[in-house]
Amino acid sequence: MRENDWLRHAARLFGSRHQGIPVGVGDDCAVLSPAGELLVSTDTVVAGVHFDLSLMDHRDAGWRALAVALSDLAACGADPQRPIAALVSAQLPAELTDENLLTLADGLGQCSQAHNCAIVGGDTVSTPGPLALTLTVLGYAERAVLRRGARPGDLLAVSGPLGRAGAGMFALRAGFTEPAYDDCRRAYRRPQALLAAGHVLARTATAMMDLSDGLLMDLDRLCAASGVGANVELNDLPLTPAAREIFTRLGHDPAVTAATFGDDYQLLVALHPTSFETMHAEMPGLTVVGHIVEGDAVHVLRDGRPVEIAQRGYEHGKENETS
Amino acid sequence: MRENDWLRHAARLFGSRHQGIPVGVGDDCAVLSPAGELLVSTDTVVAGVHFDLSLMDHRDAGWRALAVALSDLAACGADPQRPIAALVSAQLPAELTDENLLTLADGLGQCSQAHNCAIVGGDTVSTPGPLALTLTVLGYAERAVLRRGARPGDLLAVSGPLGRAGAGMFALRAGFTEPAYDDCRRAYRRPQALLAAGHVLARTATAMMDLSDGLLMDLDRLCAASGVGANVELNDLPLTPAAREIFTRLGHDPAVTAATFGDDYQLLVALHPTSFETMHAEMPGLTVVGHIVEGDAVHVLRDGRPVEIAQRGYEHGKENETS
Repeated sequence: MRENDWLRHAARLFGSRHQGIPVGVGDDCAVLSPAGELLVSTDTVVAGVHFDLSLMDHRDAGWRALAVALSDLAACGADPQRPIAALVSAQLPAELTDENLLTLADGLGQCSQAHNCAIVGGDTVSTPGPLALTLTVLGYAERAVLRRGARPGDLLAVSGPLGRAGAGMFALRAGFTEPAYDDCRRAYRRPQALLAAGHVLARTATAMMDLSDGLLMDLDRLCAASGVGANVELNDLPLTPAAREIFTRLGHDPAVTAATFGDDYQLLVALHPTSFETMHAEMPGLTVVGHIVEGDAVHVLRDGRPVEIAQRGYEHGKENETS
Repeated sequence: MRENDWLRHAARLFGSRHQGIPVGVGDDCAVLSPAGELLVSTDTVVAGVHFDLSLMDHRDAGWRALAVALSDLAACGADPQRPIAALVSAQLPAELTDENLLTLADGLGQCSQAHNCAIVGGDTVSTPGPLALTLTVLGYAERAVLRRGARPGDLLAVSGPLGRAGAGMFALRAGFTEPAYDDCRRAYRRPQALLAAGHVLARTATAMMDLSDGLLMDLDRLCAASGVGANVELNDLPLTPAAREIFTRLGHDPAVTAATFGDDYQLLVALHPTSFETMHAEMPGLTVVGHIVEGDAVHVLRDGRPVEIAQRGYEHGKENETS
């Protein structure tokens, strides 16, 4: 038990059986209508479990907590032109200084501004435990794109480079200070929620989700939700030269690490081949990394040959299957 | 700083200036339109800070966490006939057993069923700290009733008895096992969110909020939001015989304790005298406890004479002014 099971248990007694709630527990966002399609999602981060204050400051931690939550809205195709809102619940340990708190608030505020997201409420409590933030986000979509819906024959694409956040974390841990790695460090500390891209992709995507726990683990979830399998080609994964260099310096296989690390918050999308062409014209970074097949297995290939990967992803002490 | 200030600081950079977000930080709920009036609110409870597992079991703790959050929807006049939804973010310490977790989920499920509220999502993470739950709730109202809006001349009323939850907690701590105190113990462990009452009152209330931190502290907030003062008559507060008896046995002034303890989740409402008569016919428990006056001071009276009360309320380690 634990993790999802207990929430499903709670939801079982009175789950999403209301006709005004087409999607409840189990996807990136819950969907509530009437009211068009209202998207809601929540994410909790705990210091020392989901973020490491020796690798980032409180400003980064605030930014990151909100961006990660907003990424779930992007994954469902929220419209950046309609209202986007967040509620911030914070558990503050006594040892947090006023300066830490202000810096944390600055990071949240900067992120909310960058994503055109209003902070509309919250709750602040004291705790004998570590600093923890729960971000609940709301947005609207003309059409919510879910994890289910991918069909055999669809192309599988990612919205941009993979592995930057992982490379950034490794660079920070290893003390690599090269300015060429700034982009990777920034990707780790200050992820972006790809709301504009998600909204464009939502026009034709058959299934979509954000990559929080690594391509392979998240793809397993998309395939399970859609009742399909997939093939992924490691050689097709987009990596930046800096990320590739960091992984190589530390003796990690770049493509495998990029496929399993997570924290990139790029979008993973299934598309019919004809709509891929249209989308690619608008989003040059959109990159095909595999395709959807019949069955229920995700096969990882290198140069077309199957490879075994023991560790599918990076769990961050959390389970991300619920909205 | 701390508490509200830091959240306001975060909201300042990009607060509720979107035309689709008429109310942000500062009331029981945030209000988001278009989409009619969508109400959203969040509440966090931490074991050992906001609930005491020596006085209740995990089932009660689950029930209570959700009911307390739903009470904010009641306080804004959410329509129980339209969808009501909750997201549950849980931080679970390693020592929590599977049985504890199932019991907690049962309590959440029972409460969701009792309030016709769908659990539509959540997030579960591990923590080195204590058990903590963040409940985010959503509902719709034809007209959201806020804390602001009370006018001099309005009557001030409560939806039902005060002090039951406080008396229940005292009875549990003192080991009073009399069956006559069951109602008080239940009020403490299993509060109800008064959605039906809130929806009825919303038809004519000029201001409304739920009583979480005690009548006097919460009334201060309602008056501050409305820019008015109030007089409260201690002799008019409705107490049950059991609550009065428990307070008396323990040497506490019953009316003062009922006015300052909190945890009752009754609704506090300001109404024009003519609409009070209409409301009272539908809700016999509705009781006038004072009236709204010009100014900014809340005066507490006993038999019409001013009394000084040093401790205005019970903070529960939290600040409840944000939604």
